[in-house]
Amino acid sequence: MSNHVTVTEQEALQETTELYQRLHDLENRVLELEQRQKNLERDMPEPRISIVVMSGDYDRVLAAFVIATGAAAMGLQVSMFFTFWGLGVLRQNRRLRGKGLLEKAFTLLTPAGAEELSLSRLNFAGLGLRLLKRQMRQRNISSLSELIAFARDLGVRMVACQMSMDVMGIKPEELQPGLETGGVATFLADATKSKATLFI
Amino acid sequence: MSNHVTVTEQEALQETTELYQRLHDLENRVLELEQRQKNLERDMPEPRISIVVMSGDYDRVLAAFVIATGAAAMGLQVSMFFTFWGLGVLRQNRRLRGKGLLEKAFTLLTPAGAEELSLSRLNFAGLGLRLLKRQMRQRNISSLSELIAFARDLGVRMVACQMSMDVMGIKPEELQPGLETGGVATFLADATKSKATLFI
Amino acid sequence: MSNHVTVTEQEALQETTELYQRLHDLENRVLELEQRQKNLERDMPEPRISIVVMSGDYDRVLAAFVIATGAAAMGLQVSMFFTFWGLGVLRQNRRLRGKGLLEKAFTLLTPAGAEELSLSRLNFAGLGLRLLKRQMRQRNISSLSELIAFARDLGVRMVACQMSMDVMGIKPEELQPGLETGGVATFLADATKSKATLFI
Repeated sequence: MSNHVTVTEQEALQETTELYQRLHDLENRVLELEQRQKNLERDMPEPRISIVVMSGDYDRVLAAFVIATGAAAMGLQVSMFFTFWGLGVLRQNRRLRGKGLLEKAFTLLTPAGAEELSLSRLNFAGLGLRLLKRQMRQRNISSLSELIAFARDLGVRMVACQMSMDVMGIKPEELQPGLETGGVATFLADATKSKATLFI
Repeated sequence: MSNHVTVTEQEALQETTELYQRLHDLENRVLELEQRQKNLERDMPEPRISIVVMSGDYDRVLAAFVIATGAAAMGLQVSMFFTFWGLGVLRQNRRLRGKGLLEKAFTLLTPAGAEELSLSRLNFAGLGLRLLKRQMRQRNISSLSELIAFARDLGVRMVACQMSMDVMGIKPEELQPGLETGGVATFLADATKSKATLFI
Repeated sequence: MSNHVTVTEQEALQETTELYQRLHDLENRVLELEQRQKNLERDMPEPRISIVVMSGDYDRVLAAFVIATGAAAMGLQVSMFFTFWGLGVLRQNRRLRGKGLLEKAFTLLTPAGAEELSLSRLNFAGLGLRLLKRQMRQRNISSLSELIAFARDLGVRMVACQMSMDVMGIKPEELQPGLETGGVATFLADATKSKATLFI
């Protein structure tokens, strides 16, 4: 009997030790799961889309803003990066003072504002675009200028590419007020967190 | 001795209480892990790619369908959204009846079907494209029309942009049968679940 | 009293059984969490971006390489796929020997190397581009050729599209040495693992 009791005590001790070991192992595994889950959550795409607007064509820029405002209205964060010809969309005037000859030429030859863009096709010296705009009005579709204002109201982040501004000699005062300027790092920081990125 | 026993019992009680506490804590942490993992799984990109086809250039549309059919053949879900000039690819005929003057003009000036598209470069009034097509035949590369049929066979989702159809005055009967129509929300629903999104 | 003891033993046994059951359940749930977490980690986008370079326009290709080198400098993996007109960027010479008439024509009519590309707008028979390049030099911005060399130094993966090479009759010896060739599967393998994919 005393023998039996001893065995039981040993068994009980062993069982308890095993139990604590299993519990301890589980706690470690759960801790690792939690840390790796935090990493996954940090690296997951955010509810955000990013759009590079390089084109200066009315139709392509229109598509960019239809998507941007649609996404913002659905509750997505939206980042737009305007580079090269896309900068023309954000211009509100032309400044020639203090620019070199080349910069003056660029200034005069590139559009200042959304309504000066032209169609990528069937533009016919502006006739195609005028017809398109009339058709849009008749169908109660917002114009490009309205969509840009709408995008700003919806909190769409709009960044003008600093390098393009330098190359094309565009001064900050020529652009709509309150825009950010930034570089490729600004774009990539948002794009790598986005669910979708478009180059337009 | 009775004192010693009492301590042991207290200790045992305390140990048991701590054990249950640790078990209970673990269960709560595992439950939270499971819930957050379900969220992660829900938010992960699906094995899907989305393509906006805005271009009406034969070469760019060809690239879109090479990627779309390649992806579908690899087992990916594929969604294609046709907008503006891209709608020409899906047209199978031209209707003029019941259209206004402007819509008639758009109808006549935009391509009706894949084989009426032209190259973005070196088109030379169609000569460049004819040479490209001959070269593709000689290399046993599928033509654009074949790739479109192939994409439909593979279950590629093809959505025609309703707003573009309205603006350009394109009637559903002018498009290939069995296509969906949709808007920016349709596109974004698929794009935000995709592993890659292209704007072509 | 003996009755009381019996109840306690039964309770103790039941408690122990429940305890082991809870522990066993937890171990199973943690095992499942670990397996599903491994799947999530495997399917997460990598710190990588993918770029299709279909355009042969100096400005668009410049944008592609500004983004590619910027991303590589930030520590992202970068994959670039050159197709159609984009192949001109990677050419270092023209070979006519052993080509058919059509392939000879393509060879002569498409640019051989970055500095032979032209602007998508305001090219003015090369004048616009010359002015742009001068402006870039004045601002100490790397030229396209420099950016391409920089991208290769930074380990950017550059793949020439085999099908486009076949169609356009471009021989591997005409391209920069040490480039990979590949198809749509090569592109999709990288794109579906990328945080952002651009079609330029």
